[in-house]
Amino acid sequence: MTRIAYFGPQGTFTEQAARTFGEAEFISVETVPQVLAAVRAGEADYGCVPVENSVGGAVTATMDALAEDSPLIAIGEVILPVRFSILVRPGTQAEDIKTIASFPHGLTQVRQWTAENLPNAREVVTTSTAAAAAQVYDGEYDAAVSAPVAALHYPLEEFATDVADVRNAVTRFLLLSQPAALPAPTGSDRTSLAVVIAHDEPGSLASTLSELALRGINLTRIESRPLRGLYGEYRFYLDFDGHVAEQRVADALAALHRSSRQVRFLGSYPKADGSPSEPMPKNSDDDYAAARAWVTRIQEGR
Amino acid sequence: MTRIAYFGPQGTFTEQAARTFGEAEFISVETVPQVLAAVRAGEADYGCVPVENSVGGAVTATMDALAEDSPLIAIGEVILPVRFSILVRPGTQAEDIKTIASFPHGLTQVRQWTAENLPNAREVVTTSTAAAAAQVYDGEYDAAVSAPVAALHYPLEEFATDVADVRNAVTRFLLLSQPAALPAPTGSDRTSLAVVIAHDEPGSLASTLSELALRGINLTRIESRPLRGLYGEYRFYLDFDGHVAEQRVADALAALHRSSRQVRFLGSYPKADGSPSEPMPKNSDDDYAAARAWVTRIQEGR
Amino acid sequence: MTRIAYFGPQGTFTEQAARTFGEAEFISVETVPQVLAAVRAGEADYGCVPVENSVGGAVTATMDALAEDSPLIAIGEVILPVRFSILVRPGTQAEDIKTIASFPHGLTQVRQWTAENLPNAREVVTTSTAAAAAQVYDGEYDAAVSAPVAALHYPLEEFATDVADVRNAVTRFLLLSQPAALPAPTGSDRTSLAVVIAHDEPGSLASTLSELALRGINLTRIESRPLRGLYGEYRFYLDFDGHVAEQRVADALAALHRSSRQVRFLGSYPKADGSPSEPMPKNSDDDYAAARAWVTRIQEGR
Amino acid sequence: MTRIAYFGPQGTFTEQAARTFGEAEFISVETVPQVLAAVRAGEADYGCVPVENSVGGAVTATMDALAEDSPLIAIGEVILPVRFSILVRPGTQAEDIKTIASFPHGLTQVRQWTAENLPNAREVVTTSTAAAAAQVYDGEYDAAVSAPVAALHYPLEEFATDVADVRNAVTRFLLLSQPAALPAPTGSDRTSLAVVIAHDEPGSLASTLSELALRGINLTRIESRPLRGLYGEYRFYLDFDGHVAEQRVADALAALHRSSRQVRFLGSYPKADGSPSEPMPKNSDDDYAAARAWVTRIQEGR
Repeated sequence: MTRIAYFGPQGTFTEQAARTFGEAEFISVETVPQVLAAVRAGEADYGCVPVENSVGGAVTATMDALAEDSPLIAIGEVILPVRFSILVRPGTQAEDIKTIASFPHGLTQVRQWTAENLPNAREVVTTSTAAAAAQVYDGEYDAAVSAPVAALHYPLEEFATDVADVRNAVTRFLLLSQPAALPAPTGSDRTSLAVVIAHDEPGSLASTLSELALRGINLTRIESRPLRGLYGEYRFYLDFDGHVAEQRVADALAALHRSSRQVRFLGSYPKADGSPSEPMPKNSDDDYAAARAWVTRIQEGR
Repeated sequence: MTRIAYFGPQGTFTEQAARTFGEAEFISVETVPQVLAAVRAGEADYGCVPVENSVGGAVTATMDALAEDSPLIAIGEVILPVRFSILVRPGTQAEDIKTIASFPHGLTQVRQWTAENLPNAREVVTTSTAAAAAQVYDGEYDAAVSAPVAALHYPLEEFATDVADVRNAVTRFLLLSQPAALPAPTGSDRTSLAVVIAHDEPGSLASTLSELALRGINLTRIESRPLRGLYGEYRFYLDFDGHVAEQRVADALAALHRSSRQVRFLGSYPKADGSPSEPMPKNSDDDYAAARAWVTRIQEGR
Repeated sequence: MTRIAYFGPQGTFTEQAARTFGEAEFISVETVPQVLAAVRAGEADYGCVPVENSVGGAVTATMDALAEDSPLIAIGEVILPVRFSILVRPGTQAEDIKTIASFPHGLTQVRQWTAENLPNAREVVTTSTAAAAAQVYDGEYDAAVSAPVAALHYPLEEFATDVADVRNAVTRFLLLSQPAALPAPTGSDRTSLAVVIAHDEPGSLASTLSELALRGINLTRIESRPLRGLYGEYRFYLDFDGHVAEQRVADALAALHRSSRQVRFLGSYPKADGSPSEPMPKNSDDDYAAARAWVTRIQEGR
Repeated sequence: MTRIAYFGPQGTFTEQAARTFGEAEFISVETVPQVLAAVRAGEADYGCVPVENSVGGAVTATMDALAEDSPLIAIGEVILPVRFSILVRPGTQAEDIKTIASFPHGLTQVRQWTAENLPNAREVVTTSTAAAAAQVYDGEYDAAVSAPVAALHYPLEEFATDVADVRNAVTRFLLLSQPAALPAPTGSDRTSLAVVIAHDEPGSLASTLSELALRGINLTRIESRPLRGLYGEYRFYLDFDGHVAEQRVADALAALHRSSRQVRFLGSYPKADGSPSEPMPKNSDDDYAAARAWVTRIQEGR
């Protein structure tokens, strides 16, 4: 059976994300680097890790772990709404809830709901949203702010579901694999890269992005990270529409391989939202093939 | 006396950062948006907030809060090494430490040290690194992983200092003010912007960065954030060398004001590391003045 | 009375172009540099010279003369179709025409017509199309291939008019002046520049054109000329839509003044074809004023 | 024996240029289009035509003829100094010279020399510099301003050689062939293109040049020509360092094939001046091969 390692304890959003990829053996792993190590070692077939949170920003630990050591690639993404279930022991009423437990971010993201619905509950922090559920089950606290999936693991009751002060918050997860497993293009694909550019060359990032723009490639995300401490060289994480099996993307990657200090391919995979990633006019595979054929004819004097 | 509001409870790294800006009344404020609100309302003269963590990435909540509502500007930055003090009640020995308490990130960042030095201590989470110190003081737990400044507030003993598994981790903080207080250029300045660019125009980010590159402006950081949910328009946070009082920066800002959907000035302020930000050749204020004078002579037929 | 010096003998296309600028004293001058010298010395108010021929290309002598010595500016342009009149002495019939005279280019451009209409006429070259008319008047030759204006000076008869093998050939002329006379913008304006760029900096021309493109400026012509012999530095002649009184053009000129080795303004003047030269969206004078006002507010802390 | 058709009558500079390409049968052809037609039809193996004159600018007729009809390519270039021989019948003394004959441009380019050395000679125009030599030989005129090669055809005496008012004037000629004959790269090569770009897309020329600049390709010449009359689409003639057999050039050509309305390859050939055309760092054939291999490994999941 396929084994998917995921970051964090049982019952968190990452497990919930992992389960969207289908039937598998799901393995809880303590840290993101350990998830990656498990995939590299073949102890898991895939790893599921968070990469971006629309409230909290990039999950830098994941990005950095992907850019170092032996390469892994993303083969899928899932975007989950950040909506919590409030889990209680069966039969618990609002007036019974004296304590509400969660990871600090969980408490923060439902604070307004808590103030309105459980004004007398005292907040207590736990090491994860799942630990909160466990501690509610143990009778230590009264209510847990948890991922919905936590209810799979603990026989608790949903006091409320779909709870979130910020309505549009989402977290984006990637399913990682060894490089052999490149998924086929679907027409709704995203490609991720990590590119190292020298600090002391103004214009080198503009040039890098021009390599994408000139091929009509639509950038969907960029993050810079100083490479050593806050100064010196920079690493840029880029997400853009298209698949490395497509010529415009392959061509852009080759250009970045030449021009940047270093470039690492982090995967081409179906976009979670299914929005199309077709090429802009003049940048289809046919356009690339026609251009190459023309140049070959010239080179061969035909 | 100058009042500086800072994010978080007393005794955290943000208070430590705030104190580097000199003598002041320091006011602990619960959330980043509340710090900003205090400055906007004049309840504090300045606000101190984290913006970037070399381990955890951008502090998105701060960036987003700065990009919305009425404008504030950064007038200073400080970069603190993320090194913890392990605080205990006076007289505590290693063998006495059964529990070690902190905010989850604090526990994570010293886990290796803990494994080596306090292998038997059980981790317990608190709502902040400072709360850990308070709870150690109260006798609830035995050791706290705290910012060094916590020792100012609680009569605890430093069991260890300068503790950090990752040696180069730093956090970057900004000192915020109402717009009136633009600091004078120092020759080592940084300017921060938030720029909104349409999703559906490939090349518009490359053009934006070209406006900087063509003026020899050195970009030091870039982050994209989807504006509404994960799709649609994008906001880019840009940091670069130079001060808006300098012509090349003023000129670049004017260009971005014209070409982007929206641009917000987030401040020009001395860089924490004191590295020079002088213009590249052909981009000094004198070069700008000479160019403008030349055009004026042409326009006036002289 | 306004004095317009024009290149070449009386009765050529350049005189014809000069006459489109209105009532004046028209002064025939032997060479293009001498026309420019006459304007510089105040011996003529304006000078009329050819700059571009849709059959023969740039009139390099004119471009080079404009780029050197003390500056002159173009204040008007005229585009004349290259269509000849075949001039004969009154009463001459086709069968009387044994010789057809003109400047070599004139003969070349009507050769097909001649073959069809005067198959037996022998071609003879003269020093100009006007000299041909003079020599026909003197009885030396039978027919002259001349500019229509030649008929003003010699009492000859038009054997044929509107003669041209290539139907769309045109010549473009500029009216030159001392710099004081910058004409007001009309909404249909062209600006001309000479820009010197170093040979050994690949990308510097692309950067120069980016300064125009980023301001939505539409280039209508570009020519490079090696500066000394065929190698070393290059001078580029650029024509583009817009007037230096408009902010986008003034701003682009200032940028080129900073970034290029040398830039010379060669004039802003109404386009001969009256096609509009209005700014692209986001590049109007209002957009520039708004951007500048915004930056000033920032600089002043308002 | 190889047959080289050249533009113009026997004894002109074009014949002189053609003879630098080695032993051949040299065929005088009346017009540039007829030279091209002879090569296309196989009536000549090669054609020699002027393309650029450092005094008179581009030889547009040649450029336009190359851009239309079935493709030909340049396989060699020669750059000749424009220095005239003054040819006279044997025994002629300065005081005997009453008339000095040449094509108008020839007379113009030695006018200063004539004024100093033959102040009493009257200028007379002929249909070519070679015709002048012929008419001197016939006794019609006394001195001819001719290409040195004219002395091959007429038993005249060199009254003066190396005569030129402008010392650095040169003319550049191309040797044209059917496309099959692409010469091998020499390390000192030039490539010529004609590219059609739409008038109504500001920035498309900047993008085109960026395709060259991003590959470190050094542009040595650019000329724009309106395609139909003076307005509408534009054709750009580009010369740059490098050979289509080199990857950076092949890659740039493929990019222009995709992005431009139309692109025509006009040849890769050794530069007349022998200056090196090696790639900039990161743009060697090895860099291209390494980049492509890297992308292939990614695509194949290795």
